[in-house]
Amino acid sequence: GHYIICGYGRIGTLISQEFISRPVPFVIVERDQAICDSLAKEGILFVQGDATDDDTLIQAGILRAKGLITAVTSESANVYITLTARGLNPDLFILARSVEEGSEIKLKRAGATKVISPYRIGANRMAWAVLRPSVVDFIDIAVGSESLELQLEEIRVAPTSTLVDKSLVSSDIRRAWGIMIIAIKKSSGAMLFNPESNTTIDAEDILITLGEPPAIRKLEQVACGGTVNA
Amino acid sequence: GHYIICGYGRIGTLISQEFISRPVPFVIVERDQAICDSLAKEGILFVQGDATDDDTLIQAGILRAKGLITAVTSESANVYITLTARGLNPDLFILARSVEEGSEIKLKRAGATKVISPYRIGANRMAWAVLRPSVVDFIDIAVGSESLELQLEEIRVAPTSTLVDKSLVSSDIRRAWGIMIIAIKKSSGAMLFNPESNTTIDAEDILITLGEPPAIRKLEQVACGGTVNA
Ligand SMILES: [Ca+2]
Ligand SMILES: [Ca+2]
Repeated sequence: GHYIICGYGRIGTLISQEFISRPVPFVIVERDQAICDSLAKEGILFVQGDATDDDTLIQAGILRAKGLITAVTSESANVYITLTARGLNPDLFILARSVEEGSEIKLKRAGATKVISPYRIGANRMAWAVLRPSVVDFIDIAVGSESLELQLEEIRVAPTSTLVDKSLVSSDIRRAWGIMIIAIKKSSGAMLFNPESNTTIDAEDILITLGEPPAIRKLEQVACGGTVNA
Repeated sequence: GHYIICGYGRIGTLISQEFISRPVPFVIVERDQAICDSLAKEGILFVQGDATDDDTLIQAGILRAKGLITAVTSESANVYITLTARGLNPDLFILARSVEEGSEIKLKRAGATKVISPYRIGANRMAWAVLRPSVVDFIDIAVGSESLELQLEEIRVAPTSTLVDKSLVSSDIRRAWGIMIIAIKKSSGAMLFNPESNTTIDAEDILITLGEPPAIRKLEQVACGGTVNA
């Protein structure tokens, strides 16, 4: 499945860069001719058109997409794109950018799965850089895609994994691989923080893990049902 | 010590709200008459004037301030404010907002202690909400100031604390209070991730902790040299 990014403005561009670095497949929907010309030059997939138009979103593959991100500058356009996308695909993951305070409710009502206000997130980060500078350093290192020493990652446990029905301590994740399980998101949606060592791992659990990237890669293999040479 | 926030625009307003909720003492520096009128009505401390002017910053108490945040919309103004502030107080913590890509170097050269681009932070959060949704949920809960169930907090260990020279396991922080130490920032600036249970706690360590707020409050008391009824 691919993602559809509506709007190749400042936020859309930064999201695309992050997707390219993974890589995650995506297509841009953009009206502006000059921007589309430069996308063509850069070799980035795009559909030229209005993202509030059914035909444009269908052309961008909305019926088989994994998700849609609407990140244009106009608040009303983000609402309208969300409405259009939700109408075409009832199960789609839709992430909407909120521009003004108080628009979150409108975007949710229009069908957004998740709403993010980049401004609020950015301002909060500035406040935290003063109030909790080491926590900010920690997050920058642990979540930054460039980090080699540490990664905060989520790992889904497949029903076929050997981890299923083991306790955290008997899974040996901490001792053998130096990985901390700092939370477990249960399939019910509940988040279990700071789980005790006798907590049982269930199928479809999402483990929130903190560890070195090579160890995380090994755990991912085991969690998805594969084997690994420890 | 108080903080000086230069610019009461969108970002400055959001930072102020976060400071008020703590509370952290601050003063706004703002030129605009209408904004200053509304600050006066709200009862928020402010100095009306240009933050690139020595006199204005001195009036805002820069010589005894704990830090200064420059968050105006103009990139060149943020650079100039940083230069002015650094000239007046060589030891001040200065946090600067970066607006355009590539301005970070200029702001650092002008004397900023830390530079943050709210746009980039916000766009990254949107990308992660797609790529690592549970990690984003975790951070929202753990760092959000409204969280009651879990807090990611930093705690400085005072030289007089009973924690000094204890190992993590003998400090009993995990077993007695259910707090995870996920990293230790040493006084050298080095960040020690996922510390082992035999790691020794030194004076001036900053513990990056994850736990329930009441437990965190208790640990803060012990870390600053006080006692607590366990
Ligand atoms: Ca149409
Ligand atoms: Ca002057």
